[in-house]
Amino acid sequence: MSTQHDPRAVAEEGRRLSGMEYVQAIVTGALPAPPISELIGFRLVLAEPGRAVFEMEPGPQHYNPIGSVHGGIALTLLDSAMGCAVHSVLKPGQAYTTVDMTVNFVRPVFEKTGKLRCEGKLIHAGGRVATAEGRVWDGAGTLIAHGSETCLIMAVPGTPA
Amino acid sequence: MSTQHDPRAVAEEGRRLSGMEYVQAIVTGALPAPPISELIGFRLVLAEPGRAVFEMEPGPQHYNPIGSVHGGIALTLLDSAMGCAVHSVLKPGQAYTTVDMTVNFVRPVFEKTGKLRCEGKLIHAGGRVATAEGRVWDGAGTLIAHGSETCLIMAVPGTPA
Amino acid sequence: MSTQHDPRAVAEEGRRLSGMEYVQAIVTGALPAPPISELIGFRLVLAEPGRAVFEMEPGPQHYNPIGSVHGGIALTLLDSAMGCAVHSVLKPGQAYTTVDMTVNFVRPVFEKTGKLRCEGKLIHAGGRVATAEGRVWDGAGTLIAHGSETCLIMAVPGTPA
Amino acid sequence: MSTQHDPRAVAEEGRRLSGMEYVQAIVTGALPAPPISELIGFRLVLAEPGRAVFEMEPGPQHYNPIGSVHGGIALTLLDSAMGCAVHSVLKPGQAYTTVDMTVNFVRPVFEKTGKLRCEGKLIHAGGRVATAEGRVWDGAGTLIAHGSETCLIMAVPGTPA
Repeated sequence: MSTQHDPRAVAEEGRRLSGMEYVQAIVTGALPAPPISELIGFRLVLAEPGRAVFEMEPGPQHYNPIGSVHGGIALTLLDSAMGCAVHSVLKPGQAYTTVDMTVNFVRPVFEKTGKLRCEGKLIHAGGRVATAEGRVWDGAGTLIAHGSETCLIMAVPGTPA
Repeated sequence: MSTQHDPRAVAEEGRRLSGMEYVQAIVTGALPAPPISELIGFRLVLAEPGRAVFEMEPGPQHYNPIGSVHGGIALTLLDSAMGCAVHSVLKPGQAYTTVDMTVNFVRPVFEKTGKLRCEGKLIHAGGRVATAEGRVWDGAGTLIAHGSETCLIMAVPGTPA
Repeated sequence: MSTQHDPRAVAEEGRRLSGMEYVQAIVTGALPAPPISELIGFRLVLAEPGRAVFEMEPGPQHYNPIGSVHGGIALTLLDSAMGCAVHSVLKPGQAYTTVDMTVNFVRPVFEKTGKLRCEGKLIHAGGRVATAEGRVWDGAGTLIAHGSETCLIMAVPGTPA
Repeated sequence: MSTQHDPRAVAEEGRRLSGMEYVQAIVTGALPAPPISELIGFRLVLAEPGRAVFEMEPGPQHYNPIGSVHGGIALTLLDSAMGCAVHSVLKPGQAYTTVDMTVNFVRPVFEKTGKLRCEGKLIHAGGRVATAEGRVWDGAGTLIAHGSETCLIMAVPGTPA
């Protein structure tokens, strides 16, 4: 992200768009990716209503003390992809917050694992709660991790209900 | 982490120590913190058998696209603290891997939230499975997030059972 | 439960009480236990603000096809105890619904395990979301299962906010 | 289940079969359904490798104190279906135990909801750990609940590895 962008200002601007317009603007670069994307090194590569795909290359900077990529990397990817899948179906004036999240780690990640692909998909969108599921695969399509997430849907303060 | 250290070599070295010796060596700096600690900016400040505490200051580099610190930060802290709490009770020749993890986010995090403190505590240590719980608080002791984790305990290949 | 009681009528009546008054009325028998309690054979033995304790004796009728008590029993106890812990802090005019729940099974249950004790405790109560944790022990105080739950807090339709 | 069957004896017998043979024997009635099935009133209606479907009709006996079917019912169905999906891919001499489980409740269940259908599907089967996901729908195919489960795969004591 260019350092000229204040992430909170971008978030504010995003509240006037529908969720799909907002996430699509990040895919195309019309809006900057959030700071966390640059820090960790992941990017949103595809968004459609109820679905979002992120990609990243794991590197030595992501390692934990037990000789593999830290679980926080898959957790961050999954939280991003599932949150984005929920975000993509919000109307203007709606916001979401993630209430909780569960992840299963089924294979460790190493540098040699290569590019990770993480997909989030909406399962349920109700009036107050939305749920999504997510998967992370390596470049060969082998499953690395999977999870689910619960989000609360809220009216943005100051917008008509 | 100093770039002279290969994280996999450090992990390898760690396998000759008990879990408590290993995590304590990271607290004192006798072993380097893992690369992920430097990337995200967190540090292990206390470890005792069945308990580990991490701290970090959230900053603008941790923001998500919706105007707060990305959930991946609390997820990474909790995974670290709960994994470390499990690690601290392993005997030489034992290793662990995190199987799954659940986190509740009860309050958003902003820069103004200030220093985060995350504690992981062992709940159950069986022959094959260990579980731990974790909490994240802000500097005033207000709860930010909480969760639990399931780990598999394994013999390190090539060591006596 | 006496068959004269319509569970929905009891639930309706309960909405005029505070949560603590309602769960306490079940402990004392002033309100009948819900039908599920009689079917499974568990009972609410203690309730205080933010805490609830259930007990039951596992029997042959609770067995699964793999030779132990079905996990659904601990799940049902934990859901009851954690839900009740949340219910106990609601004001008149508030209702809750469980959004999701996670449980770790750390030891199997057999008939010989004897009386189970399950405690639910409130972790966080916010304006829209409450979380609770729960534990199941056998009669000797050995941990059997533990978990956590997320509930949504709502205004009962037709009551002042 | 006929009361002539000792559930532990049936479980013992089941260990000589492959997982698929065992669950299929419950579908056809060659082996009795477990006691919990009769107590709660659900039945295994379909099993294939990595997939199992249960059905049940919710009734007044399943109600909680807040006017709907107790969450324990969906939890028990999901635990059964996901466990069975894992069981169906075990080889003779292998057993499984459920380590943990997460469930999202997306709609309440009432008597008028009618027949529930619950499907468990294997996600990942590794050497030591298997994961499965599950969904519960009403008769019209509307989603009621969804979840996931982590199981440990073990050699049955006394059988060749």
